[in-house]
Amino acid sequence: MKSEHLDREEGIQRLRELITEIRCSMLTTIDTDGTLRSRPMATQQAEFDGDLWFFTESNSAKIDELQHDNRVNLTFSDPSNNKYVSLSGRAEVVHDASKAEELWNPIYKAWFPKGLDDPNLVLLKIKTERAEFWDSPSGKVVQLFGYVKALATGKPYGGEGAEDVKIDLRNP
Amino acid sequence: MKSEHLDREEGIQRLRELITEIRCSMLTTIDTDGTLRSRPMATQQAEFDGDLWFFTESNSAKIDELQHDNRVNLTFSDPSNNKYVSLSGRAEVVHDASKAEELWNPIYKAWFPKGLDDPNLVLLKIKTERAEFWDSPSGKVVQLFGYVKALATGKPYGGEGAEDVKIDLRNP
Repeated sequence: MKSEHLDREEGIQRLRELITEIRCSMLTTIDTDGTLRSRPMATQQAEFDGDLWFFTESNSAKIDELQHDNRVNLTFSDPSNNKYVSLSGRAEVVHDASKAEELWNPIYKAWFPKGLDDPNLVLLKIKTERAEFWDSPSGKVVQLFGYVKALATGKPYGGEGAEDVKIDLRNP
Repeated sequence: MKSEHLDREEGIQRLRELITEIRCSMLTTIDTDGTLRSRPMATQQAEFDGDLWFFTESNSAKIDELQHDNRVNLTFSDPSNNKYVSLSGRAEVVHDASKAEELWNPIYKAWFPKGLDDPNLVLLKIKTERAEFWDSPSGKVVQLFGYVKALATGKPYGGEGAEDVKIDLRNP
Protein backbone atom coordinates (compact mmCIF):
# COMPACT_ATOMS: atom_id res chain seq x y z
CA MET A 1 0.00 0.00 0.00
CA LYS A 2 1.40 3.35 -1.08
CA SER A 3 1.31 5.95 1.67
CA GLU A 4 2.15 9.60 1.12
CA HIS A 5 2.02 12.84 3.03
CA LEU A 6 0.61 15.98 1.46
CA ASP A 7 1.00 19.57 2.53
CA ARG A 8 -2.06 21.33 3.91
CA GLU A 9 -3.20 23.16 0.77
CA GLU A 10 -2.85 20.19 -1.54
CA GLY A 11 -4.47 17.94 1.04
CA ILE A 12 -7.46 20.23 1.48
CA GLN A 13 -7.89 20.44 -2.29
CA ARG A 14 -8.02 16.63 -2.65
CA LEU A 15 -10.26 16.22 0.37
CA ARG A 16 -12.61 18.86 -1.04
CA GLU A 17 -12.94 16.89 -4.27
CA LEU A 18 -13.54 13.60 -2.44
CA ILE A 19 -16.07 15.04 0.02
CA THR A 20 -18.01 16.78 -2.75
CA GLU A 21 -18.07 13.57 -4.75
CA ILE A 22 -18.97 11.19 -1.92
CA ARG A 23 -21.48 13.33 -0.02
CA CYS A 24 -22.41 10.65 2.52
CA SER A 25 -20.88 10.92 5.94
CA MET A 26 -21.12 9.27 9.33
CA LEU A 27 -20.21 11.24 12.46
CA THR A 28 -18.66 9.30 15.37
CA THR A 29 -18.77 10.74 18.88
CA ILE A 30 -17.97 9.43 22.36
CA ASP A 31 -21.07 8.88 24.48
CA THR A 32 -21.09 9.94 28.14
CA ASP A 33 -20.55 6.28 29.12
CA GLY A 34 -17.54 6.00 26.79
CA THR A 35 -19.33 4.19 23.95
CA LEU A 36 -18.40 5.23 20.41
CA ARG A 37 -21.58 6.02 18.44
CA SER A 38 -22.13 7.04 14.84
CA ARG A 39 -25.00 8.51 12.87
CA PRO A 40 -25.48 9.63 9.26
CA MET A 41 -25.17 13.37 8.62
CA ALA A 42 -26.60 15.39 5.76
CA THR A 43 -23.66 16.75 3.82
CA GLN A 44 -22.90 20.44 4.00
CA GLN A 45 -23.14 22.68 0.96
CA ALA A 46 -20.24 24.91 2.03
CA GLU A 47 -16.85 24.48 0.43
CA PHE A 48 -14.46 22.52 2.63
CA ASP A 49 -11.56 24.63 3.93
CA GLY A 50 -10.53 22.46 6.87
CA ASP A 51 -13.75 23.11 8.80
CA LEU A 52 -17.03 21.30 8.21
CA TRP A 53 -20.43 22.67 9.11
CA PHE A 54 -23.65 20.80 9.81
CA PHE A 55 -27.09 21.77 10.98
CA THR A 56 -28.36 19.82 13.96
CA GLU A 57 -30.86 20.04 16.81
CA SER A 58 -29.74 21.52 20.11
CA ASN A 59 -31.62 18.80 22.01
CA SER A 60 -30.08 15.87 20.10
CA ALA A 61 -28.05 13.18 21.89
CA LYS A 62 -24.88 14.10 20.02
CA ILE A 63 -24.90 17.60 21.49
CA ASP A 64 -24.87 16.10 25.02
CA GLU A 65 -22.07 13.80 23.97
CA LEU A 66 -20.01 16.63 22.48
CA GLN A 67 -20.33 18.74 25.60
CA HIS A 68 -18.86 15.84 27.52
CA ASP A 69 -16.11 15.09 24.97
CA ASN A 70 -15.68 17.07 21.74
CA ARG A 71 -13.46 14.60 19.87
CA VAL A 72 -15.11 13.36 16.69
CA ASN A 73 -14.44 11.40 13.55
CA LEU A 74 -16.20 11.88 10.24
CA THR A 75 -16.10 9.23 7.55
CA PHE A 76 -17.03 9.53 3.92
CA SER A 77 -17.29 6.25 2.05
CA ASP A 78 -17.97 5.25 -1.51
CA PRO A 79 -17.30 1.51 -1.71
CA SER A 80 -18.30 1.15 -5.35
CA ASN A 81 -15.48 3.51 -6.29
CA ASN A 82 -13.18 2.31 -3.52
CA LYS A 83 -12.88 5.81 -2.00
CA TYR A 84 -12.83 6.45 1.72
CA VAL A 85 -12.07 9.47 3.89
CA SER A 86 -11.46 9.67 7.65
CA LEU A 87 -11.42 13.13 9.23
CA SER A 88 -10.41 13.50 12.89
CA GLY A 89 -11.18 16.69 14.74
CA ARG A 90 -13.01 18.62 17.40
CA ALA A 91 -16.62 19.72 17.29
CA GLU A 92 -18.23 22.82 18.71
CA VAL A 93 -21.80 24.02 18.79
CA VAL A 94 -22.12 27.45 17.16
CA HIS A 95 -25.04 29.85 17.53
CA ASP A 96 -24.55 32.28 14.66
CA ALA A 97 -27.63 33.45 12.75
CA SER A 98 -25.70 34.99 9.86
CA LYS A 99 -23.52 31.90 9.39
CA ALA A 100 -26.67 29.75 9.49
CA GLU A 101 -28.26 31.92 6.82
CA GLU A 102 -25.14 31.67 4.68
CA LEU A 103 -25.13 27.85 4.93
CA TRP A 104 -28.88 27.26 4.68
CA ASN A 105 -30.27 25.38 1.72
CA PRO A 106 -33.98 24.59 1.16
CA ILE A 107 -33.15 20.88 0.99
CA TYR A 108 -32.50 20.99 4.76
CA LYS A 109 -36.25 21.56 5.26
CA ALA A 110 -36.60 17.79 4.95
CA TRP A 111 -34.84 17.49 8.31
CA PHE A 112 -35.70 20.89 9.80
CA PRO A 113 -39.19 21.82 8.57
CA LYS A 114 -39.25 25.08 10.55
CA GLY A 115 -36.08 26.18 8.78
CA LEU A 116 -33.94 28.99 10.13
CA ASP A 117 -36.71 30.08 12.50
CA ASP A 118 -36.45 26.83 14.47
CA PRO A 119 -35.14 27.82 17.93
CA ASN A 120 -33.82 24.25 18.25
CA LEU A 121 -31.59 24.61 15.15
CA VAL A 122 -27.87 25.01 15.85
CA LEU A 123 -24.70 24.73 13.83
CA LEU A 124 -22.09 22.12 14.47
CA LYS A 125 -18.60 23.18 13.42
CA ILE A 126 -16.01 20.46 13.04
CA LYS A 127 -12.42 21.58 12.95
CA THR A 128 -10.38 18.94 11.18
CA GLU A 129 -7.03 18.13 12.77
CA ARG A 130 -6.06 15.01 10.87
CA ALA A 131 -7.25 13.41 7.68
CA GLU A 132 -6.61 10.15 5.91
CA PHE A 133 -8.04 9.01 2.64
CA TRP A 134 -7.97 5.99 0.38
CA ASP A 135 -8.46 6.90 -3.23
CA SER A 136 -8.56 4.45 -6.05
CA PRO A 137 -8.00 6.70 -9.06
CA SER A 138 -9.83 4.63 -11.67
CA GLY A 139 -12.55 3.08 -9.57
CA LYS A 140 -13.92 -0.41 -10.19
CA VAL A 141 -11.63 -1.30 -13.05
CA VAL A 142 -8.54 -0.71 -10.97
CA GLN A 143 -10.13 -2.52 -8.08
CA LEU A 144 -10.67 -5.59 -10.21
CA PHE A 145 -7.30 -5.23 -11.92
CA GLY A 146 -5.61 -4.68 -8.61
CA TYR A 147 -7.25 -7.73 -7.15
CA VAL A 148 -6.41 -9.97 -10.09
CA LYS A 149 -2.88 -8.64 -10.24
CA ALA A 150 -2.48 -9.17 -6.50
CA LEU A 151 -3.47 -12.79 -6.91
CA ALA A 152 -1.08 -13.15 -9.85
CA THR A 153 1.96 -11.39 -8.44
CA GLY A 154 1.60 -12.06 -4.75
CA LYS A 155 1.81 -8.32 -4.05
CA PRO A 156 -0.91 -6.84 -1.85
CA TYR A 157 -3.80 -5.33 -3.77
CA GLY A 158 -3.60 -1.91 -2.11
CA GLY A 159 -0.26 -1.28 -3.80
CA GLU A 160 -1.87 -1.03 -7.22
CA GLY A 161 -5.39 0.11 -6.64
CA ALA A 162 -5.56 2.25 -3.57
CA GLU A 163 -3.39 4.80 -1.89
CA ASP A 164 -3.64 5.86 1.71
CA VAL A 165 -2.74 9.50 2.14
CA LYS A 166 -2.23 11.14 5.52
CA ILE A 167 -2.62 14.85 6.07
CA ASP A 168 -1.96 16.88 9.18
CA LEU A 169 -4.30 19.90 9.16
CA ARG A 170 -3.41 21.38 12.51
CA ASN A 171 -0.91 24.00 11.34
CA PRO A 172 -2.32 26.13 8.56
CA MET B 1 -38.42 10.15 13.20
CA LYS B 2 -39.76 6.83 14.42
CA SER B 3 -37.58 5.20 17.04
CA GLU B 4 -38.13 1.66 18.30
CA HIS B 5 -36.39 -0.86 20.49
CA LEU B 6 -36.02 -4.48 19.38
CA ASP B 7 -35.19 -7.53 21.45
CA ARG B 8 -31.80 -9.15 20.88
CA GLU B 9 -32.84 -11.93 18.48
CA GLU B 10 -34.97 -9.75 16.25
CA GLY B 11 -32.31 -7.05 16.32
CA ILE B 12 -29.54 -9.43 15.29
CA GLN B 13 -31.69 -10.78 12.46
CA ARG B 14 -32.28 -7.28 11.03
CA LEU B 15 -28.66 -6.28 11.50
CA ARG B 16 -27.55 -9.46 9.74
CA GLU B 17 -29.68 -8.56 6.72
CA LEU B 18 -28.40 -4.98 6.62
CA ILE B 19 -24.73 -5.90 7.07
CA THR B 20 -24.93 -8.60 4.38
CA GLU B 21 -26.57 -6.14 2.02
CA ILE B 22 -24.31 -3.16 2.68
CA ARG B 23 -20.95 -4.93 2.94
CA CYS B 24 -18.87 -1.74 3.29
CA SER B 25 -17.72 -0.81 6.75
CA MET B 26 -15.48 1.72 8.44
CA LEU B 27 -13.87 0.89 11.78
CA THR B 28 -13.31 3.75 14.24
CA THR B 29 -10.74 3.41 17.02
CA ILE B 30 -9.19 5.77 19.57
CA ASP B 31 -5.56 6.56 18.82
CA THR B 32 -3.00 6.63 21.65
CA ASP B 33 -3.17 10.46 21.61
CA GLY B 34 -6.98 10.38 21.90
CA THR B 35 -7.73 11.05 18.23
CA LEU B 36 -10.64 9.13 16.70
CA ARG B 37 -9.49 7.44 13.48
CA SER B 38 -11.35 5.34 10.92
CA ARG B 39 -10.35 3.05 8.09
CA PRO B 40 -12.24 0.87 5.63
CA MET B 41 -12.49 -2.84 6.49
CA ALA B 42 -13.07 -5.76 4.16
CA THR B 43 -16.38 -7.29 5.15
CA GLN B 44 -16.38 -10.65 6.87
CA GLN B 45 -17.94 -13.69 5.27
CA ALA B 46 -19.14 -15.17 8.56
CA GLU B 47 -22.76 -14.84 9.58
CA PHE B 48 -23.33 -12.06 12.12
CA ASP B 49 -24.37 -13.35 15.54
CA GLY B 50 -23.45 -10.31 17.62
CA ASP B 51 -19.71 -10.72 17.01
CA LEU B 52 -17.86 -9.56 13.90
CA TRP B 53 -14.59 -10.98 12.68
CA PHE B 54 -11.97 -9.37 10.49
CA PHE B 55 -8.53 -10.32 9.29
CA THR B 56 -5.83 -7.75 9.94
CA GLU B 57 -2.09 -7.40 10.32
CA SER B 58 -0.57 -7.72 13.77
CA ASN B 59 1.78 -4.78 13.05
CA SER B 60 -0.96 -2.37 11.88
CA ALA B 61 -1.59 0.90 13.69
CA LYS B 62 -5.09 -0.14 14.76
CA ILE B 63 -3.68 -3.03 16.80
CA ASP B 64 -1.55 -0.59 18.81
CA GLU B 65 -4.59 1.63 19.27
CA LEU B 66 -6.77 -1.26 20.44
CA GLN B 67 -4.22 -2.38 22.99
CA HIS B 68 -4.40 1.12 24.44
CA ASP B 69 -8.20 1.40 24.27
CA ASN B 70 -10.41 -1.39 22.90
CA ARG B 71 -13.59 0.64 22.35
CA VAL B 72 -14.60 0.69 18.70
CA ASN B 73 -17.39 1.71 16.39
CA LEU B 74 -18.21 0.08 13.08
CA THR B 75 -20.38 1.82 10.52
CA PHE B 76 -22.07 0.36 7.47
CA SER B 77 -23.47 2.90 5.05
CA ASP B 78 -25.44 2.72 1.86
CA PRO B 79 -26.51 6.29 1.06
CA SER B 80 -28.21 5.44 -2.21
CA ASN B 81 -30.66 3.24 -0.31
CA ASN B 82 -30.68 5.45 2.78
CA LYS B 83 -29.47 2.63 5.05
CA TYR B 84 -26.98 3.11 7.83
CA VAL B 85 -25.76 0.97 10.73
CA SER B 86 -23.71 1.96 13.79
CA LEU B 87 -22.29 -0.85 15.93
CA SER B 88 -20.58 -0.02 19.22
CA GLY B 89 -18.42 -2.58 20.94
CA ARG B 90 -15.07 -3.84 22.12
CA ALA B 91 -12.35 -5.34 19.97
CA GLU B 92 -9.86 -8.04 20.79
CA VAL B 93 -7.02 -9.57 18.84
CA VAL B 94 -7.47 -13.33 18.51
CA HIS B 95 -4.78 -15.83 17.54
CA ASP B 96 -6.75 -18.93 16.57
CA ALA B 97 -5.61 -20.93 13.56
CA SER B 98 -8.76 -23.06 13.28
CA LYS B 99 -11.05 -20.01 13.49
CA ALA B 100 -8.90 -18.29 10.86
CA GLU B 101 -9.23 -21.31 8.60
CA GLU B 102 -13.00 -21.35 9.11
CA LEU B 103 -13.27 -17.66 8.17
CA TRP B 104 -10.73 -17.59 5.36
CA ASN B 105 -11.87 -16.83 1.83
CA PRO B 106 -9.55 -16.66 -1.23
CA ILE B 107 -10.74 -13.09 -1.87
CA TYR B 108 -8.72 -12.01 1.18
CA LYS B 109 -5.55 -12.83 -0.77
CA ALA B 110 -5.93 -9.39 -2.33
CA TRP B 111 -5.06 -7.91 1.08
CA PHE B 112 -3.04 -10.78 2.52
CA PRO B 113 -1.15 -12.42 -0.34
CA LYS B 114 0.57 -14.94 1.92
CA GLY B 115 -2.80 -16.18 3.12
CA LEU B 116 -3.18 -18.18 6.29
CA ASP B 117 0.58 -18.84 6.39
CA ASP B 118 1.31 -15.15 6.98
CA PRO B 119 2.73 -14.93 10.53
CA ASN B 120 1.56 -11.31 10.60
CA LEU B 121 -2.09 -12.30 10.03
CA VAL B 122 -4.35 -12.06 13.09
CA LEU B 123 -8.08 -12.03 13.71
CA LEU B 124 -9.89 -9.05 15.11
CA LYS B 125 -13.04 -9.99 17.00
CA ILE B 126 -15.52 -7.21 17.66
CA LYS B 127 -18.12 -7.90 20.31
CA THR B 128 -21.11 -5.67 19.67
CA GLU B 129 -22.64 -4.05 22.73
CA ARG B 130 -24.98 -1.55 21.16
CA ALA B 131 -26.38 -1.11 17.68
CA GLU B 132 -28.41 1.54 15.93
CA PHE B 133 -29.63 1.51 12.39
CA TRP B 134 -31.52 3.72 10.00
CA ASP B 135 -33.44 1.73 7.46
CA SER B 136 -35.53 3.22 4.73
CA PRO B 137 -37.67 0.26 3.70
CA SER B 138 -38.25 1.16 0.06
CA GLY B 139 -35.02 2.95 -0.75
CA LYS B 140 -34.79 5.84 -3.15
CA VAL B 141 -38.48 6.15 -3.93
CA VAL B 142 -39.36 6.59 -0.28
CA GLN B 143 -36.47 8.94 0.15
CA LEU B 144 -37.77 11.15 -2.60
CA PHE B 145 -41.37 10.75 -1.49
CA GLY B 146 -40.41 11.39 2.10
CA TYR B 147 -38.53 14.50 1.16
CA VAL B 148 -41.28 15.88 -1.04
CA LYS B 149 -43.90 15.01 1.53
CA ALA B 150 -41.82 16.66 4.25
CA LEU B 151 -41.72 19.86 2.24
CA ALA B 152 -45.46 19.64 1.60
CA THR B 153 -46.67 18.78 5.09
CA GLY B 154 -44.05 20.45 7.23
CA LYS B 155 -43.39 17.14 9.00
CA PRO B 156 -39.75 16.06 9.22
CA TYR B 157 -38.66 13.71 6.49
CA GLY B 158 -37.40 10.98 8.80
CA GLY B 159 -40.95 10.28 9.95
CA GLU B 160 -41.90 8.84 6.59
CA GLY B 161 -38.71 7.55 5.10
CA ALA B 162 -36.37 6.40 7.79
CA GLU B 163 -36.57 4.72 11.13
CA ASP B 164 -33.88 4.72 13.77
CA VAL B 165 -33.85 1.49 15.74
CA LYS B 166 -31.77 1.00 18.87
CA ILE B 167 -30.69 -2.41 20.09
CA ASP B 168 -28.90 -3.34 23.29
CA LEU B 169 -26.84 -6.47 22.61
CA ARG B 170 -25.11 -6.77 25.95
CA ASN B 171 -27.48 -9.30 27.55
CA PRO B 172 -27.98 -12.36 25.38
